[in-house]
Amino acid sequence: MPAIAVDAMGGQHAPEAVVQGVAGISLQTDIECVLVGDAPRLQQILEGIAYNPEHIDLVHAGEVIALDEEPNEAVQRKRDASLLAAMRLVSSDRCAAMVTAGNTGAAIAGGRREFALIPGVRTAALASVYPRAADHPGQDPLALLLDVGATVRCEPADLVQFGVMGAAYAQVISKVEAPRVALLNMGHDPAQGGALSQAHQQLGSLTGLNFVGNIEGNELTSGRADVVVCEGLLGNIVLRLLEAVAGMAVDLTASAAQRNWRWRAGMAIMATGTERLSALADYASYGGAPILGFEHLIIKAHRRSTAQSITNAVKVAAKAVRDGAVARVAGAIGSAAPAPARRRSRR
Amino acid sequence: MPAIAVDAMGGQHAPEAVVQGVAGISLQTDIECVLVGDAPRLQQILEGIAYNPEHIDLVHAGEVIALDEEPNEAVQRKRDASLLAAMRLVSSDRCAAMVTAGNTGAAIAGGRREFALIPGVRTAALASVYPRAADHPGQDPLALLLDVGATVRCEPADLVQFGVMGAAYAQVISKVEAPRVALLNMGHDPAQGGALSQAHQQLGSLTGLNFVGNIEGNELTSGRADVVVCEGLLGNIVLRLLEAVAGMAVDLTASAAQRNWRWRAGMAIMATGTERLSALADYASYGGAPILGFEHLIIKAHRRSTAQSITNAVKVAAKAVRDGAVARVAGAIGSAAPAPARRRSRR
Repeated sequence: MPAIAVDAMGGQHAPEAVVQGVAGISLQTDIECVLVGDAPRLQQILEGIAYNPEHIDLVHAGEVIALDEEPNEAVQRKRDASLLAAMRLVSSDRCAAMVTAGNTGAAIAGGRREFALIPGVRTAALASVYPRAADHPGQDPLALLLDVGATVRCEPADLVQFGVMGAAYAQVISKVEAPRVALLNMGHDPAQGGALSQAHQQLGSLTGLNFVGNIEGNELTSGRADVVVCEGLLGNIVLRLLEAVAGMAVDLTASAAQRNWRWRAGMAIMATGTERLSALADYASYGGAPILGFEHLIIKAHRRSTAQSITNAVKVAAKAVRDGAVARVAGAIGSAAPAPARRRSRR
Repeated sequence: MPAIAVDAMGGQHAPEAVVQGVAGISLQTDIECVLVGDAPRLQQILEGIAYNPEHIDLVHAGEVIALDEEPNEAVQRKRDASLLAAMRLVSSDRCAAMVTAGNTGAAIAGGRREFALIPGVRTAALASVYPRAADHPGQDPLALLLDVGATVRCEPADLVQFGVMGAAYAQVISKVEAPRVALLNMGHDPAQGGALSQAHQQLGSLTGLNFVGNIEGNELTSGRADVVVCEGLLGNIVLRLLEAVAGMAVDLTASAAQRNWRWRAGMAIMATGTERLSALADYASYGGAPILGFEHLIIKAHRRSTAQSITNAVKVAAKAVRDGAVARVAGAIGSAAPAPARRRSRR
């Protein structure tokens, strides 16, 4: 199997956490990784830890795009950035997919620069998993939400393609045969939400898609849908709010525990429950978010990624490659009605 | 002080809960209410409970708009609906403001029909309070979010007016001298979010407004802003998600408590904490949501309103009347730059 290119310099805990995550992968699995970044420094980190040298290559890149840099400008200026060098390993077919925990906007802008869109795709989307209640046994505890920030506003045809791409990806990763796709809207009435009603109608007319209609804000955390479609502005705010609220639930119990001995006693008893809440707050680290629509797959790991999050993201990338996720997305887009070219601006 | 018109037939627990709430008010305060609805039935409910007859009048209305009715059609067809009859008591100056726990869309559509917009206002907005962490002692634990569903899409000039109206209302109700107004967006960069950047610029240029810039999804639950501005589609989804997540936190602890005796023991110890979470889930019942922009005030109580929620909503309406909330909003709109007429469609 071809290797996964890993941007070793991206993320708050890079390069240490990234190298450690890849070292872990090299011992646990047959997945081969190419670490891209400051090669002498990466070599030095590797020398201090256990890893399988047969599964790790290093490729030097002299620049780094910081987490707070303006994405388009950075991608334009820093041609030797580890993020872009990793992408070029993929576009030249030396690697099969890439992982980065760096600047999200730069990962999207870099993809637009280094990769072609799948024929027929109007614009790429960033998809993120989020935790929700399962409504039947064995259901994946995570649903896919897209777009969460590659776009701002979307036309109905964009939202339709997000549904098609998200369903194809979920089929590969979650092994759900017919993922339930829903449109995030302010009511169940198909006519609701202005131009969203056109997206509703078009999604409903696709024979290959299991479209279950509109989903409202209060249903996002239910098991009603496996793939939730919305424009980037809305998805970004929903995702970040979910992260904050999950974190707040943990803080609420933790701060109360510090304040009051009875709470402390309660907390000890409730350890299992607290772990559940923590897991909820940590979900962002689970697996990473795919950027869908390009001819090559980018897995965007959370900027706060630990070694474990990087390990998960690389495993997801390898699984997506093995199961032909990009080809599945391309096939699904090809089977859906051809869409007119996109005119509106992006992020 | 002029009376508050109360739609006695609106809400899941109407008319009983509404009548009980108004009866409670009549005993506790000097506020006068006019209960509008099926007069014989309202009289019958009143006869079974304690109330002060000097503070309650009944006005008969023969029709009811159900919670699930299509709002525009219902408002068009049911001219004798309790909701519209209550509005006419306000537009004819017999009452000073109105309260309803009924169909939200119908309350907005009814307002558009029965009330005039404040001169200069482009479109009315539904504002809702939501709980957030306070970042200094004595800070109101609730922030105001608008619009949450009177509009779908908004132009920048609409968002600017929402900021102006929300700040004026918060000054009256929360007694904050210079409420911090923020724009809900996907990043702090003023240039972010497409057309939102124009709203950012215009909000920042208003001298009478304490505009603190963009607020992201993960900051909504912080104390950074007192008034958060967004278009209706976004606000509606954020608000309903907040409701669901608060409810989920309560369910999580409650269901775990049923399952496991150690959890039960923990829950007994943690009673205070659970109450806090329940209060969070119940915040929707706190006070009700004002519909801002009309020449008369509508307080929209939650459809699940209990007697206590109705009592709160009537108190908020009376306070807003006493402190001249509508005049304050009108004055603020008048001082802000005149805005061009609105062209785009509504809900």
